[in-house]
Amino acid sequence: MLFRQLFDEDSSTYTYLIADRTLKQALLVDPVLEQVEGNYQLLDELGLTLEYCLETHIHADHITGTGKLRTMTGCSVIVPENAPVTCADGFMGDKQVLKLGSIIVEAIATPGHTNSHVAYFINQKILLTGDALFIRGCGRTDFQSGDPGVLYDSVTQRLFTLPDETLVYPGHDYNGNTVSTIGEEKQSNPRFVGRDRLQFITLMNNLNLPNPKKIKEAVFANQKCGNV
Amino acid sequence: MLFRQLFDEDSSTYTYLIADRTLKQALLVDPVLEQVEGNYQLLDELGLTLEYCLETHIHADHITGTGKLRTMTGCSVIVPENAPVTCADGFMGDKQVLKLGSIIVEAIATPGHTNSHVAYFINQKILLTGDALFIRGCGRTDFQSGDPGVLYDSVTQRLFTLPDETLVYPGHDYNGNTVSTIGEEKQSNPRFVGRDRLQFITLMNNLNLPNPKKIKEAVFANQKCGNV
Repeated sequence: MLFRQLFDEDSSTYTYLIADRTLKQALLVDPVLEQVEGNYQLLDELGLTLEYCLETHIHADHITGTGKLRTMTGCSVIVPENAPVTCADGFMGDKQVLKLGSIIVEAIATPGHTNSHVAYFINQKILLTGDALFIRGCGRTDFQSGDPGVLYDSVTQRLFTLPDETLVYPGHDYNGNTVSTIGEEKQSNPRFVGRDRLQFITLMNNLNLPNPKKIKEAVFANQKCGNV
Repeated sequence: MLFRQLFDEDSSTYTYLIADRTLKQALLVDPVLEQVEGNYQLLDELGLTLEYCLETHIHADHITGTGKLRTMTGCSVIVPENAPVTCADGFMGDKQVLKLGSIIVEAIATPGHTNSHVAYFINQKILLTGDALFIRGCGRTDFQSGDPGVLYDSVTQRLFTLPDETLVYPGHDYNGNTVSTIGEEKQSNPRFVGRDRLQFITLMNNLNLPNPKKIKEAVFANQKCGNV
Protein backbone atom coordinates (compact mmCIF):
# COMPACT_ATOMS: atom_id res chain seq x y z
CA MET A 1 0.00 0.00 0.00
CA LEU A 2 1.13 3.51 -0.76
CA PHE A 3 0.07 6.09 1.80
CA ARG A 4 0.63 9.84 1.52
CA GLN A 5 -0.39 12.62 3.84
CA LEU A 6 -0.77 15.95 2.03
CA PHE A 7 -1.30 19.35 3.69
CA ASP A 8 -3.25 22.42 2.58
CA GLU A 9 -1.63 25.24 4.52
CA ASP A 10 -4.42 27.79 4.01
CA SER A 11 -7.04 25.66 5.78
CA SER A 12 -4.63 23.36 7.69
CA THR A 13 -6.41 20.41 6.05
CA TYR A 14 -4.87 16.98 5.57
CA THR A 15 -5.75 15.08 2.40
CA TYR A 16 -4.80 11.41 2.16
CA LEU A 17 -3.68 9.55 -0.94
CA ILE A 18 -3.92 5.77 -0.61
CA ALA A 19 -3.09 3.37 -3.41
CA ASP A 20 -2.63 -0.28 -4.24
CA ARG A 21 0.91 -0.38 -5.59
CA THR A 22 0.28 -3.45 -7.74
CA LEU A 23 -2.99 -2.38 -9.35
CA LYS A 24 -1.80 1.24 -9.54
CA GLN A 25 -5.25 2.35 -8.38
CA ALA A 26 -5.77 5.12 -5.86
CA LEU A 27 -8.27 6.90 -3.70
CA LEU A 28 -8.14 10.34 -2.12
CA VAL A 29 -9.79 11.30 1.16
CA ASP A 30 -10.87 14.92 1.75
CA PRO A 31 -9.20 16.62 -1.24
CA VAL A 32 -9.06 20.43 -1.23
CA LEU A 33 -10.06 22.41 -4.33
CA GLU A 34 -6.92 24.59 -4.39
CA GLN A 35 -4.69 21.50 -4.26
CA VAL A 36 -6.37 19.54 -7.05
CA GLU A 37 -3.74 20.37 -9.68
CA GLY A 38 -0.99 19.23 -7.32
CA ASN A 39 -2.92 16.05 -6.44
CA TYR A 40 -3.39 15.32 -10.13
CA GLN A 41 0.30 15.86 -10.86
CA LEU A 42 1.30 13.55 -7.99
CA LEU A 43 -1.07 10.82 -9.24
CA ASP A 44 0.47 11.21 -12.69
CA GLU A 45 4.05 11.07 -11.39
CA LEU A 46 3.25 7.94 -9.41
CA GLY A 47 1.49 6.34 -12.39
CA LEU A 48 -1.77 5.98 -10.45
CA THR A 49 -5.38 5.97 -11.66
CA LEU A 50 -7.77 7.74 -9.29
CA GLU A 51 -10.76 5.48 -8.65
CA TYR A 52 -12.45 7.17 -5.69
CA CYS A 53 -12.65 10.43 -3.79
CA LEU A 54 -14.02 10.00 -0.28
CA GLU A 55 -15.27 12.66 2.11
CA THR A 56 -15.31 12.24 5.87
CA HIS A 57 -18.01 14.94 6.09
CA ILE A 58 -19.31 18.14 4.53
CA HIS A 59 -16.57 20.64 5.27
CA ALA A 60 -17.18 24.20 6.41
CA ASP A 61 -13.65 25.58 6.18
CA HIS A 62 -12.59 24.73 2.62
CA ILE A 63 -14.15 23.81 -0.70
CA THR A 64 -13.80 20.18 -1.67
CA GLY A 65 -11.82 19.08 -4.72
CA THR A 66 -13.98 16.01 -5.35
CA GLY A 67 -16.08 17.42 -8.18
CA LYS A 68 -13.10 18.82 -10.06
CA LEU A 69 -11.16 15.58 -9.63
CA ARG A 70 -14.15 13.60 -10.93
CA THR A 71 -14.25 15.80 -14.02
CA MET A 72 -10.50 15.38 -14.56
CA THR A 73 -10.25 11.64 -13.86
CA GLY A 74 -13.70 10.06 -13.97
CA CYS A 75 -13.37 8.90 -10.36
CA SER A 76 -16.40 8.19 -8.18
CA VAL A 77 -17.28 10.52 -5.32
CA ILE A 78 -18.27 8.78 -2.08
CA VAL A 79 -19.75 10.68 0.87
CA PRO A 80 -21.14 9.64 4.25
CA GLU A 81 -24.64 8.20 4.41
CA ASN A 82 -27.24 10.90 5.06
CA ALA A 83 -24.88 13.72 4.07
CA PRO A 84 -26.93 16.50 2.46
CA VAL A 85 -25.15 16.14 -0.87
CA THR A 86 -26.75 16.11 -4.31
CA CYS A 87 -23.75 15.08 -6.37
CA ALA A 88 -22.37 11.83 -4.92
CA ASP A 89 -21.86 8.58 -6.78
CA GLY A 90 -22.10 6.54 -3.60
CA PHE A 91 -22.54 6.66 0.15
CA MET A 92 -20.75 4.96 3.04
CA GLY A 93 -22.75 4.10 6.16
CA ASP A 94 -21.50 2.72 9.46
CA LYS A 95 -19.47 -0.49 9.02
CA GLN A 96 -19.78 -0.39 5.24
CA VAL A 97 -16.64 -1.43 3.42
CA LEU A 98 -15.01 -0.23 0.22
CA LYS A 99 -12.32 -2.40 -1.36
CA LEU A 100 -9.63 -1.27 -3.77
CA GLY A 101 -7.24 -4.14 -4.43
CA SER A 102 -5.43 -4.81 -1.18
CA ILE A 103 -6.95 -1.76 0.48
CA ILE A 104 -9.97 -2.22 2.71
CA VAL A 105 -11.71 0.95 3.86
CA GLU A 106 -14.28 0.60 6.63
CA ALA A 107 -16.53 3.52 7.51
CA ILE A 108 -17.11 4.21 11.19
CA ALA A 109 -20.05 6.49 11.93
CA THR A 110 -18.66 9.31 14.06
CA PRO A 111 -21.27 12.08 14.14
CA GLY A 112 -20.97 15.10 16.38
CA HIS A 113 -18.88 17.58 14.40
CA THR A 114 -21.58 17.18 11.76
CA ASN A 115 -24.45 14.70 11.94
CA SER A 116 -23.27 12.62 8.96
CA HIS A 117 -19.56 12.32 9.72
CA VAL A 118 -17.63 9.07 9.22
CA ALA A 119 -14.05 8.06 10.01
CA TYR A 120 -12.30 5.69 7.61
CA PHE A 121 -10.39 2.72 9.01
CA ILE A 122 -7.80 1.52 6.49
CA ASN A 123 -6.71 -2.12 6.67
CA GLN A 124 -7.47 -2.13 10.40
CA LYS A 125 -4.33 -0.07 11.04
CA ILE A 126 -4.71 3.52 9.84
CA LEU A 127 -7.62 5.59 11.11
CA LEU A 128 -8.54 8.72 9.17
CA THR A 129 -10.46 10.57 11.85
CA GLY A 130 -11.66 13.57 9.83
CA ASP A 131 -12.91 16.27 12.20
CA ALA A 132 -14.12 13.87 14.90
CA LEU A 133 -10.74 13.46 16.58
CA PHE A 134 -7.65 15.64 16.16
CA ILE A 135 -4.20 15.11 17.67
CA ARG A 136 -4.74 16.37 21.23
CA GLY A 137 -8.02 17.96 20.15
CA CYS A 138 -11.31 17.42 18.31
CA GLY A 139 -13.58 19.12 15.82
CA ARG A 140 -15.86 21.92 16.95
CA THR A 141 -19.55 21.21 17.51
CA ASP A 142 -21.15 24.65 17.38
CA PHE A 143 -22.48 24.80 13.83
CA GLN A 144 -23.71 22.69 10.91
CA SER A 145 -25.64 20.09 12.93
CA GLY A 146 -22.82 19.71 15.46
CA ASP A 147 -23.60 18.16 18.84
CA PRO A 148 -20.98 17.83 21.60
CA GLY A 149 -22.69 14.95 23.41
CA VAL A 150 -22.92 12.99 20.17
CA LEU A 151 -19.25 13.72 19.41
CA TYR A 152 -18.25 12.55 22.90
CA ASP A 153 -20.03 9.25 22.30
CA SER A 154 -18.49 8.85 18.83
CA VAL A 155 -14.95 9.39 20.07
CA THR A 156 -15.13 7.50 23.34
CA GLN A 157 -17.32 4.58 22.20
CA ARG A 158 -16.28 4.12 18.57
CA LEU A 159 -12.69 5.40 18.24
CA PHE A 160 -11.19 4.98 21.71
CA THR A 161 -12.35 1.33 21.63
CA LEU A 162 -10.03 0.55 18.69
CA PRO A 163 -6.61 -0.99 19.44
CA ASP A 164 -4.15 1.35 21.16
CA GLU A 165 -1.62 1.03 18.33
CA THR A 166 -4.11 2.26 15.70
CA LEU A 167 -2.52 5.18 13.85
CA VAL A 168 -4.55 8.39 14.05
CA TYR A 169 -4.37 10.61 10.98
CA PRO A 170 -6.63 13.64 11.46
CA GLY A 171 -8.49 15.86 8.99
CA HIS A 172 -6.71 18.94 10.30
CA ASP A 173 -3.81 19.92 12.45
CA TYR A 174 -2.99 23.43 13.59
CA ASN A 175 0.11 22.62 15.66
CA GLY A 176 2.55 20.88 13.34
CA ASN A 177 1.58 17.31 14.25
CA THR A 178 1.17 14.67 11.58
CA VAL A 179 0.18 11.44 13.31
CA SER A 180 -0.73 9.98 16.69
CA THR A 181 -2.21 6.74 18.02
CA ILE A 182 -5.46 5.82 19.74
CA GLY A 183 -3.47 4.87 22.85
CA GLU A 184 -1.83 8.29 22.91
CA GLU A 185 -5.08 10.18 22.45
CA LYS A 186 -6.86 8.17 25.15
CA GLN A 187 -4.02 9.06 27.49
CA SER A 188 -3.19 12.65 26.51
CA ASN A 189 -6.04 14.34 24.57
CA PRO A 190 -6.93 17.30 26.81
CA ARG A 191 -10.48 17.52 25.47
CA PHE A 192 -11.33 14.04 26.75
CA VAL A 193 -8.93 13.11 29.55
CA GLY A 194 -10.63 13.49 32.92
CA ARG A 195 -13.91 14.74 31.44
CA ASP A 196 -17.23 12.92 31.48
CA ARG A 197 -19.89 13.53 28.83
CA LEU A 198 -21.48 16.46 30.63
CA GLN A 199 -18.14 18.16 31.33
CA PHE A 200 -17.19 17.71 27.67
CA ILE A 201 -20.48 19.29 26.54
CA THR A 202 -19.89 22.26 28.85
CA LEU A 203 -16.34 22.69 27.52
CA MET A 204 -17.39 22.51 23.87
CA ASN A 205 -20.33 24.87 24.35
CA ASN A 206 -18.02 27.53 25.78
CA LEU A 207 -15.17 27.56 23.23
CA ASN A 208 -16.54 30.75 21.59
CA LEU A 209 -14.64 30.18 18.35
CA PRO A 210 -15.00 32.53 15.39
CA ASN A 211 -16.68 31.04 12.31
CA PRO A 212 -14.35 29.67 9.62
CA LYS A 213 -13.60 32.29 6.98
CA LYS A 214 -15.15 30.30 4.16
CA ILE A 215 -18.16 28.79 5.95
CA LYS A 216 -20.88 30.40 3.84
CA GLU A 217 -19.43 29.54 0.46
CA ALA A 218 -17.89 26.23 1.55
CA VAL A 219 -20.93 24.41 2.94
CA PHE A 220 -23.06 25.44 -0.03
CA ALA A 221 -20.37 24.46 -2.54
CA ASN A 222 -19.56 21.19 -0.82
CA GLN A 223 -23.19 20.04 -1.05
CA LYS A 224 -22.50 20.10 -4.81
CA CYS A 225 -19.01 18.49 -4.62
CA GLY A 226 -17.38 21.89 -4.94
CA ASN A 227 -19.07 22.70 -8.26
CA VAL A 228 -21.07 25.89 -7.72
CA MET B 1 10.90 2.28 16.31
CA LEU B 2 8.74 5.31 16.87
CA PHE B 3 8.96 7.93 14.11
CA ARG B 4 7.26 11.32 14.16
CA GLN B 5 7.43 14.12 11.64
CA LEU B 6 6.75 17.52 13.21
CA PHE B 7 6.20 20.79 11.34
CA ASP B 8 7.10 24.38 12.22
CA GLU B 9 4.71 26.42 10.13
CA ASP B 10 6.56 29.73 10.43
CA SER B 11 9.74 28.40 8.79
CA SER B 12 8.17 25.36 7.04
CA THR B 13 10.76 23.22 8.85
CA TYR B 14 10.36 19.52 9.58
CA THR B 15 11.74 18.20 12.85
CA TYR B 16 11.95 14.44 13.36
CA LEU B 17 11.44 12.54 16.58
CA ILE B 18 12.84 9.01 16.51
CA ALA B 19 12.77 6.67 19.47
CA ASP B 20 13.43 3.11 20.54
CA ARG B 21 10.08 2.01 21.93
CA THR B 22 11.60 -0.56 24.26
CA LEU B 23 14.37 1.56 25.76
CA LYS B 24 12.11 4.65 25.72
CA GLN B 25 15.07 6.68 24.47
CA ALA B 26 14.73 9.30 21.76
CA LEU B 27 16.59 11.63 19.46
CA LEU B 28 15.43 14.75 17.67
CA VAL B 29 16.74 15.94 14.31
CA ASP B 30 16.65 19.66 13.47
CA PRO B 31 14.51 20.97 16.35
CA VAL B 32 13.20 24.55 16.10
CA LEU B 33 13.51 26.93 19.06
CA GLU B 34 9.85 28.03 18.99
CA GLN B 35 8.67 24.41 19.09
CA VAL B 36 10.85 23.25 22.00
CA GLU B 37 8.06 23.41 24.58
CA GLY B 38 5.83 21.32 22.33
CA ASN B 39 8.66 18.84 21.66
CA TYR B 40 9.27 18.53 25.39
CA GLN B 41 5.59 17.95 26.11
CA LEU B 42 5.39 15.27 23.41
CA LEU B 43 8.46 13.49 24.81
CA ASP B 44 6.85 13.60 28.24
CA GLU B 45 3.49 12.29 26.99
CA LEU B 46 5.26 9.44 25.21
CA GLY B 47 7.38 8.67 28.27
CA LEU B 48 10.62 9.18 26.33
CA THR B 49 14.05 10.36 27.49
CA LEU B 50 15.80 12.63 25.00
CA GLU B 51 19.35 11.37 24.47
CA TYR B 52 20.47 13.31 21.39
CA CYS B 53 19.67 16.34 19.28
CA LEU B 54 21.15 16.11 15.79
CA GLU B 55 21.54 18.86 13.20
CA THR B 56 21.74 18.23 9.48
CA HIS B 57 23.48 21.62 9.05
CA ILE B 58 23.71 25.14 10.39
CA HIS B 59 20.33 26.63 9.51
CA ALA B 60 19.82 30.11 8.14
CA ASP B 61 16.03 30.34 8.32
CA HIS B 62 15.27 29.45 11.91
CA ILE B 63 16.99 29.28 15.29
CA THR B 64 17.77 25.79 16.51
CA GLY B 65 16.19 24.35 19.63
CA THR B 66 19.19 22.13 20.45
CA GLY B 67 20.73 24.33 23.15
CA LYS B 68 17.44 24.86 24.97
CA LEU B 69 16.60 21.15 24.78
CA ARG B 70 20.04 20.28 26.18
CA THR B 71 19.42 22.60 29.11
CA MET B 72 15.98 21.08 29.72
CA THR B 73 16.89 17.40 29.29
CA GLY B 74 20.67 16.97 29.46
CA CYS B 75 20.76 15.52 25.93
CA SER B 76 23.89 15.65 23.77
CA VAL B 77 24.03 17.95 20.76
CA ILE B 78 25.53 16.38 17.63
CA VAL B 79 26.39 18.44 14.55
CA PRO B 80 28.07 17.67 11.20
CA GLU B 81 31.84 17.37 11.12
CA ASN B 82 33.48 20.68 10.26
CA ALA B 83 30.35 22.69 11.09
CA PRO B 84 31.43 26.08 12.51
CA VAL B 85 29.82 25.40 15.87
CA THR B 86 31.31 26.10 19.29
CA CYS B 87 28.74 24.34 21.43
CA ALA B 88 28.47 20.74 20.21
CA ASP B 89 28.98 17.60 22.30
CA GLY B 90 29.87 15.55 19.26
CA PHE B 91 30.27 15.54 15.50
CA MET B 92 29.13 13.19 12.74
CA GLY B 93 31.31 12.78 9.66
CA ASP B 94 30.60 10.86 6.47
CA LYS B 95 29.63 7.23 7.15
CA GLN B 96 29.87 7.68 10.90
CA VAL B 97 27.20 5.82 12.83
CA LEU B 98 25.25 6.68 15.97
CA LYS B 99 23.34 3.90 17.71
CA LEU B 100 20.42 4.30 20.08
CA GLY B 101 19.00 0.89 20.93
CA SER B 102 17.52 -0.54 17.75
CA ILE B 103 18.04 2.72 15.88
CA ILE B 104 21.08 3.06 13.65
CA VAL B 105 21.78 6.53 12.28
CA GLU B 106 24.35 6.81 9.52
CA ALA B 107 25.61 10.21 8.42
CA ILE B 108 25.98 10.79 4.68
CA ALA B 109 28.08 13.82 3.77
CA THR B 110 25.91 15.94 1.46
CA PRO B 111 27.54 19.36 1.19
CA GLY B 112 26.34 21.99 -1.26
CA HIS B 113 23.56 23.83 0.59
CA THR B 114 26.24 24.46 3.20
CA ASN B 115 29.72 22.98 3.18
CA SER B 116 29.22 20.85 6.29
CA HIS B 117 25.79 19.35 5.60
CA VAL B 118 24.96 15.72 6.33
CA ALA B 119 21.89 13.59 5.64
CA TYR B 120 20.93 10.96 8.22
CA PHE B 121 20.03 7.47 7.04
CA ILE B 122 17.91 5.70 9.67
CA ASN B 123 18.00 1.89 9.74
CA GLN B 124 18.78 1.85 6.01
CA LYS B 125 15.16 2.82 5.27
CA ILE B 126 14.40 6.41 6.21
CA LEU B 127 16.54 9.20 4.78
CA LEU B 128 16.44 12.58 6.50
CA THR B 129 17.71 14.75 3.68
CA GLY B 130 17.91 18.10 5.48
CA ASP B 131 18.28 20.89 2.92
CA ALA B 132 20.20 18.81 0.38
CA LEU B 133 17.13 17.26 -1.23
CA PHE B 134 13.52 18.40 -0.93
CA ILE B 135 10.41 16.74 -2.36
CA ARG B 136 10.57 17.89 -5.99
CA GLY B 137 13.19 20.47 -5.06
CA CYS B 138 16.46 21.08 -3.23
CA GLY B 139 18.08 23.55 -0.87
CA ARG B 140 19.40 26.85 -2.21
CA THR B 141 23.12 27.28 -2.75
CA ASP B 142 23.59 31.04 -2.87
CA PHE B 143 24.77 31.83 0.65
CA GLN B 144 26.54 30.40 3.69
CA SER B 145 29.20 28.40 1.83
CA GLY B 146 26.69 27.00 -0.66
CA ASP B 147 27.95 25.54 -3.94
CA PRO B 148 25.58 24.24 -6.63
CA GLY B 149 28.11 21.91 -8.27
CA VAL B 150 28.90 20.33 -4.92
CA LEU B 151 25.17 19.95 -4.16
CA TYR B 152 24.60 18.30 -7.55
CA ASP B 153 27.31 15.77 -6.77
CA SER B 154 25.94 15.13 -3.26
CA VAL B 155 22.41 14.46 -4.49
CA THR B 156 23.21 12.51 -7.63
CA GLN B 157 26.18 10.51 -6.33
CA ARG B 158 25.29 9.98 -2.66
CA LEU B 159 21.48 10.11 -2.37
CA PHE B 160 20.22 9.00 -5.79
CA THR B 161 22.45 5.91 -5.50
CA LEU B 162 20.46 4.64 -2.49
CA PRO B 163 17.68 2.08 -3.11
CA ASP B 164 14.63 3.45 -4.94
CA GLU B 165 12.31 2.53 -2.08
CA THR B 166 14.27 4.64 0.45
CA LEU B 167 11.84 7.05 2.13
CA VAL B 168 12.80 10.70 1.70
CA TYR B 169 11.91 12.96 4.62
CA PRO B 170 13.12 16.51 3.90
CA GLY B 171 14.19 19.35 6.18
CA HIS B 172 11.54 21.65 4.71
CA ASP B 173 8.51 21.53 2.52
CA TYR B 174 6.66 24.52 1.17
CA ASN B 175 3.99 22.67 -0.82
CA GLY B 176 2.17 20.41 1.64
CA ASN B 177 4.20 17.27 0.96
CA THR B 178 5.38 15.06 3.80
CA VAL B 179 7.33 12.20 2.26
CA SER B 180 8.68 10.87 -1.02
CA THR B 181 11.09 8.16 -2.14
CA ILE B 182 14.49 8.17 -3.83
CA GLY B 183 12.92 6.46 -6.86
CA GLU B 184 10.31 9.19 -7.14
CA GLU B 185 12.82 12.01 -6.82
CA LYS B 186 15.14 10.48 -9.40
CA GLN B 187 12.20 10.30 -11.78
CA SER B 188 10.29 13.52 -11.02
CA ASN B 189 12.46 16.12 -9.23
CA PRO B 190 12.42 19.06 -11.65
CA ARG B 191 15.71 20.46 -10.35
CA PHE B 192 17.61 17.33 -11.44
CA VAL B 193 15.63 15.52 -14.14
CA GLY B 194 17.16 16.20 -17.54
CA ARG B 195 19.87 18.49 -16.16
CA ASP B 196 23.58 17.79 -16.13
CA ARG B 197 25.92 19.34 -13.57
CA LEU B 198 26.54 22.51 -15.58
CA GLN B 199 22.86 23.06 -16.33
CA PHE B 200 22.06 22.57 -12.64
CA ILE B 201 24.70 25.15 -11.66
CA THR B 202 23.24 27.64 -14.13
CA LEU B 203 19.73 27.03 -12.81
CA MET B 204 20.75 27.43 -9.18
CA ASN B 205 22.83 30.55 -9.85
CA ASN B 206 19.82 32.27 -11.41
CA LEU B 207 17.09 31.58 -8.85
CA ASN B 208 17.40 35.13 -7.42
CA LEU B 209 15.73 34.21 -4.14
CA PRO B 210 15.30 36.76 -1.35
CA ASN B 211 17.32 36.07 1.80
CA PRO B 212 15.50 34.21 4.61
CA LYS B 213 13.96 36.65 7.07
CA LYS B 214 16.00 35.39 10.01
CA ILE B 215 19.35 34.78 8.29
CA LYS B 216 21.41 37.30 10.26
CA GLU B 217 20.25 36.26 13.70
CA ALA B 218 19.82 32.55 12.83
CA VAL B 219 23.30 31.69 11.55
CA PHE B 220 24.97 33.52 14.42
CA ALA B 221 22.68 31.93 17.02
CA ASN B 222 22.96 28.47 15.52
CA GLN B 223 26.73 28.50 15.80
CA LYS B 224 26.01 28.60 19.54
CA CYS B 225 23.22 25.97 19.52
CA GLY B 226 20.63 28.74 19.61
CA ASN B 227 21.93 30.23 22.86
CA VAL B 228 22.77 33.87 22.09
